[in-house]
Amino acid sequence: MAELGRLLTAMVTPYTDEGAVNLPMARELARMLVENGNDGVVVTGTTGEAPLLSDDEKYALWSEVKQELGGATVVAGAGTNDTRHSIHLAKLAERAGADAILAVVPYYLKPSQEGIYQHFRAIAESTSLPVILYNVPGRVGVGMTVETILRCAELPNVVGNKEANGDLRHTAAVMEAAPGFKIWSGNDNDNFHLWCMGAWGAISVTAHIVARQQRAMLEAVLGGRLAEAAAIHRALCRVTDACFLNGSPSTIRYVLRQLGFAIGAPRLPVVEPDEAVGAKVMAELRRHRLDVPVPA
Amino acid sequence: MAELGRLLTAMVTPYTDEGAVNLPMARELARMLVENGNDGVVVTGTTGEAPLLSDDEKYALWSEVKQELGGATVVAGAGTNDTRHSIHLAKLAERAGADAILAVVPYYLKPSQEGIYQHFRAIAESTSLPVILYNVPGRVGVGMTVETILRCAELPNVVGNKEANGDLRHTAAVMEAAPGFKIWSGNDNDNFHLWCMGAWGAISVTAHIVARQQRAMLEAVLGGRLAEAAAIHRALCRVTDACFLNGSPSTIRYVLRQLGFAIGAPRLPVVEPDEAVGAKVMAELRRHRLDVPVPA
Amino acid sequence: MAELGRLLTAMVTPYTDEGAVNLPMARELARMLVENGNDGVVVTGTTGEAPLLSDDEKYALWSEVKQELGGATVVAGAGTNDTRHSIHLAKLAERAGADAILAVVPYYLKPSQEGIYQHFRAIAESTSLPVILYNVPGRVGVGMTVETILRCAELPNVVGNKEANGDLRHTAAVMEAAPGFKIWSGNDNDNFHLWCMGAWGAISVTAHIVARQQRAMLEAVLGGRLAEAAAIHRALCRVTDACFLNGSPSTIRYVLRQLGFAIGAPRLPVVEPDEAVGAKVMAELRRHRLDVPVPA
Amino acid sequence: MAELGRLLTAMVTPYTDEGAVNLPMARELARMLVENGNDGVVVTGTTGEAPLLSDDEKYALWSEVKQELGGATVVAGAGTNDTRHSIHLAKLAERAGADAILAVVPYYLKPSQEGIYQHFRAIAESTSLPVILYNVPGRVGVGMTVETILRCAELPNVVGNKEANGDLRHTAAVMEAAPGFKIWSGNDNDNFHLWCMGAWGAISVTAHIVARQQRAMLEAVLGGRLAEAAAIHRALCRVTDACFLNGSPSTIRYVLRQLGFAIGAPRLPVVEPDEAVGAKVMAELRRHRLDVPVPA
Repeated sequence: MAELGRLLTAMVTPYTDEGAVNLPMARELARMLVENGNDGVVVTGTTGEAPLLSDDEKYALWSEVKQELGGATVVAGAGTNDTRHSIHLAKLAERAGADAILAVVPYYLKPSQEGIYQHFRAIAESTSLPVILYNVPGRVGVGMTVETILRCAELPNVVGNKEANGDLRHTAAVMEAAPGFKIWSGNDNDNFHLWCMGAWGAISVTAHIVARQQRAMLEAVLGGRLAEAAAIHRALCRVTDACFLNGSPSTIRYVLRQLGFAIGAPRLPVVEPDEAVGAKVMAELRRHRLDVPVPA
Repeated sequence: MAELGRLLTAMVTPYTDEGAVNLPMARELARMLVENGNDGVVVTGTTGEAPLLSDDEKYALWSEVKQELGGATVVAGAGTNDTRHSIHLAKLAERAGADAILAVVPYYLKPSQEGIYQHFRAIAESTSLPVILYNVPGRVGVGMTVETILRCAELPNVVGNKEANGDLRHTAAVMEAAPGFKIWSGNDNDNFHLWCMGAWGAISVTAHIVARQQRAMLEAVLGGRLAEAAAIHRALCRVTDACFLNGSPSTIRYVLRQLGFAIGAPRLPVVEPDEAVGAKVMAELRRHRLDVPVPA
Repeated sequence: MAELGRLLTAMVTPYTDEGAVNLPMARELARMLVENGNDGVVVTGTTGEAPLLSDDEKYALWSEVKQELGGATVVAGAGTNDTRHSIHLAKLAERAGADAILAVVPYYLKPSQEGIYQHFRAIAESTSLPVILYNVPGRVGVGMTVETILRCAELPNVVGNKEANGDLRHTAAVMEAAPGFKIWSGNDNDNFHLWCMGAWGAISVTAHIVARQQRAMLEAVLGGRLAEAAAIHRALCRVTDACFLNGSPSTIRYVLRQLGFAIGAPRLPVVEPDEAVGAKVMAELRRHRLDVPVPA
Repeated sequence: MAELGRLLTAMVTPYTDEGAVNLPMARELARMLVENGNDGVVVTGTTGEAPLLSDDEKYALWSEVKQELGGATVVAGAGTNDTRHSIHLAKLAERAGADAILAVVPYYLKPSQEGIYQHFRAIAESTSLPVILYNVPGRVGVGMTVETILRCAELPNVVGNKEANGDLRHTAAVMEAAPGFKIWSGNDNDNFHLWCMGAWGAISVTAHIVARQQRAMLEAVLGGRLAEAAAIHRALCRVTDACFLNGSPSTIRYVLRQLGFAIGAPRLPVVEPDEAVGAKVMAELRRHRLDVPVPA
């Protein structure tokens, strides 16, 4: 199984003015992200508004972005809260050429830990692709216990977990028991802390606009230059806070449009921030050096 | 607009041994529920495993159950986290003859309050059916503020809210500002408290098995016989705790099967409780008088 | 053991301009509170800034207020987080003529449930006065489980619990297992809910200024006139929110001073709200009919 | 102002069999702690059961331990929730020869942010000793905002904050705005994370028994040897969890007694864990290399 990249952006889905998925723009965005320091992208993850896309739209996005990026990592956001549908998407992702799939803990239904395990097992057994779990109790309504993650980690192609539970003690226990299992940070404000503790990487929202600094922070952590890394971390926290001021993906979509990316309006129920909130976001971002210049 | 019932069960979805939706069993279950004191049912709500059913399966369930029940209320669980899909389901529900639709706050995506409002407005404008909102932040990841509920309450066909946020102070503010707006309790342990405060009814899980006692409690509250109502409430709390011991709908499905209802195994990621948990559930239920006798 | 009153105000401690305890003003305030419908007062509770008073000051307050009120209930706030000191205060309270003592779960130290039980047992055994527990995890850092309350309830002179944990399900379990054990609501916004469920009374902050309405609400609940009680409840919620806007006892002290009571400035670390917050509080209170007229 | 040590143990208070403070044992314990790698101790902090000690007992402890340790740091836990009393203790601590005082956010009273600031300002102005704040909302019921900490940091002798709020984002903001202000970690499981981010040190409970490993971890972090530090961190998390299994200081007192330190039984309301819990604690500790050998 090929190594999956450390720094991946959970990419937004661009739309045309008519609201269709904008495939050329998706290619362009993905290419820009890799050029700015990402090892690859997650396509149709949460930030990509997965629940608002049809299966056909997802397939097209995975396939076109993979063609565009070639050797860079393309992870297909293939998880839903329906096991059967997730299996279908996992098969589509494999056919589309994705390097791995990302599968979220089933949201809304609040399954038991056993139900979560059965869900992931069924998905993992349906594909030869590497599977990355996604633990995000703040969105899902329930989180995986350490034990459940460790059970899933024994499934041969479950290679890691995108961890967004905010509980570093929990992740320490996972790391101790399963040293080879990869952790990608799923909260940008936790990237530094998880990396210091030995996490593999991050699946990031803010890497849309600060991948260079995230890459620099990652290199500094890996090189043991903590003071340098911590200084970047503290600055990036302000960027992250700004990029989540109206929730996500609402805010990052707005930011990208302000920076000149023609990604179109989001689909309902996602709406962009209003003017007042938008102005606060951009005022903060103007204080930082982004990968893309901020218009005045 | 016809009055919608006060006491509604959020009905489980029965499956055949092969895993298909069991429509005759759905009819039988719905009829039993009304005979036991429910004013009607919610079909394909959360307890009905809505995210695990196809649109066709939902249509068939709404249509058949409505034919079965005739004058009793049938609410179609038509909400998803995708506005466009929810509109499609609302139209199907209307065609199927449902009396109203239930639409949940969009889960997982964590939309802003404005996004939640736009979601409900778009759904409400797409149908002539009454719309009941469903506020359940513990599953959804975000809740409606008082202000958002009140904005939605001004939409002509938004008739009420199934409230499961556990915040009685919040509901008091809604009730004060919108006296005609109906509140259905969405947590069985809150039924008594919300009814005392003037809420209209409940959309219940435990009314699968204790509708008679819930009806008696409701009548006692409406009649000002508080000591009687409180005594029922305290006993029902234990039933509710038991019915949620392994989460919902996992536990209530298990209970119904133990009581002899051939509703089949749940669809993944929902799984029934294991033996040890199941035994605890049934041991508690044996201490209560249920609408259906508990086998020894 | 004489019956203790249902509606008790947790009275603020008045100070002179020089910062000494103002005993005449304490008498006057206590008398006014009883005239407005309270069955009595708690002296040197949390609202009375117990941790900021010396033992001598407490003794004087208990003794003088009891002399002033005669037959009305005077509960001495005698709890601290130090068992030995609490026992000392319990003895002083008995000597001062208090009708009962209020003893809080030991704050800050986060004792185990066994430690909490041992604390209350030691206090209860040291006095012949009735003891009221006070469960307020939001201030204390730990709460009593149902089991611990029930263990304490078996101590002969532990007559009840001032419950401020906000968990109505928890109190239902206590009520069911210990029907004779009295519950006083410790959060004003929960008074209505706890009374409907059968609680005995309330130890209130807002009864400083709305005892008449609380009394009316209590009578309505006891008489089964729920619509009337619920209407009062919804209005009182706004009063309560206002009276806690800057925390308590900060805000209620400010309000009383604005209403003309010469209770002096609080002792540090309690400080009154600043002008902006104070103005918001008074603006809300002007919308209500208080027991004491609000100056324009 | 002399540099205060990085690694300090919040030392338990030893008692004789009769329950008096055991000063010789306190000296012995403090010396052992410094020999094992601590830069000093906090005497009569939370772990030292400050609320259960008289002022005289505190004075004696500060004075004797300072005499014993000489150049090593002795911080006097001088904070209470009463500003006036805290000032009195700060003066006593200065007279006793302490190197600094530790002052906690006023517990139980839930003061406003302004009240917290006034409290710390009054204390800081009353002493020439360095003052360390202590932010521990889980015990106190309220925490300091970033703004309040920064206001306090401007007081000339407020040198740092013992941070136990568990919110690394919050501390990043404090560090960014006040680079010279020292942060001591106040949750042992956060030591690694805070140190990586640039925090000065820790005021630790587990350093009673694993100071050598904490020192090694600190050196590894300071030297940029992250993998080494993270490995120690993950192991120490298990020690920390064990040492808090029955709360603190209950559990660490029990552990020390099991390890042969004659520190006597705690004062109420603190009680030691029961046998079953105690056995679990010791079973875990036997898996680790402690500074003091664990009897079989």
